[in-house]
Amino acid sequence: MDPNKIFGTRKTIEQVEEGRELAPKFDAHGLIPAVTTDFESGELLMHGYMNAEALALTISTGEAHYFSRSRQAIWHKGATSGLVQTVRELKIDDDQDCVWLRVDVHGGASCHVGYRSCFYRTVPVGAAVIGEQPLPLEFTEHEKVFDPEIVYPGVANPTKL
Amino acid sequence: MDPNKIFGTRKTIEQVEEGRELAPKFDAHGLIPAVTTDFESGELLMHGYMNAEALALTISTGEAHYFSRSRQAIWHKGATSGLVQTVRELKIDDDQDCVWLRVDVHGGASCHVGYRSCFYRTVPVGAAVIGEQPLPLEFTEHEKVFDPEIVYPGVANPTKL
Repeated sequence: MDPNKIFGTRKTIEQVEEGRELAPKFDAHGLIPAVTTDFESGELLMHGYMNAEALALTISTGEAHYFSRSRQAIWHKGATSGLVQTVRELKIDDDQDCVWLRVDVHGGASCHVGYRSCFYRTVPVGAAVIGEQPLPLEFTEHEKVFDPEIVYPGVANPTKL
Repeated sequence: MDPNKIFGTRKTIEQVEEGRELAPKFDAHGLIPAVTTDFESGELLMHGYMNAEALALTISTGEAHYFSRSRQAIWHKGATSGLVQTVRELKIDDDQDCVWLRVDVHGGASCHVGYRSCFYRTVPVGAAVIGEQPLPLEFTEHEKVFDPEIVYPGVANPTKL
């Protein structure tokens, strides 16, 4: 599926916001953010980026493809770990500069650290937090679904400081 | 709440991923993406950005504050429209470069176009889509919650081509 053909040209704000034509906006690096939630639970699993090719591959195959900024390469989620994400629904936002993937996850985890979701810690909010600095995080997942050293042998951790 | 005090220093990957200290990563523009979902329904409402001040304000007030890239200013969501987002839960991801807000929305809408969610259109996925170019979008919301011309009188549309 050729990205140049399946994506329309952005001509007017009305066309982009109210139209029925896919015309995504990629940023200065050629990327669009992708928000991925679990189809059944609604839980936010991860936040990644796609380039035009990754978005076209996601649409044509029905499996989530991202663009790895750390590796600067197309990233078929699950190719290494087996934790493939099947896209049940794909949505795009008002100005078409963000996509939302609602997925089923094979293997039950989406986070390279081993947790089900990348969002396994809460930040305190409101008056109760005054005093502690830096702010403390609280874990909401207490057990990893998998061991990253077994699932990703010899693969560098993508997290950057 | 001073961002310099409530955010920790990023020292090691283990500290960032497995630690109990808030140490968010802001990008080259000083921003962190923020994913906002409806606390009750789990629906993705919007995807925005925060700078350090907006994140600190969100934490201290319990109401979502973003950074408007088009206006280059702090944006207290709902200050103009009344559609304030009360944060019920705030989470951060593995490498602490994205936050997730689970909110209650006063007024029932979060999209400047007038829809409940910014994600009111689906993109077709899989074999069924082959043929139509550019790809067609399908609306999943059919009525606006509000009229933007009444709620945002004289305010420029933030959407950029």
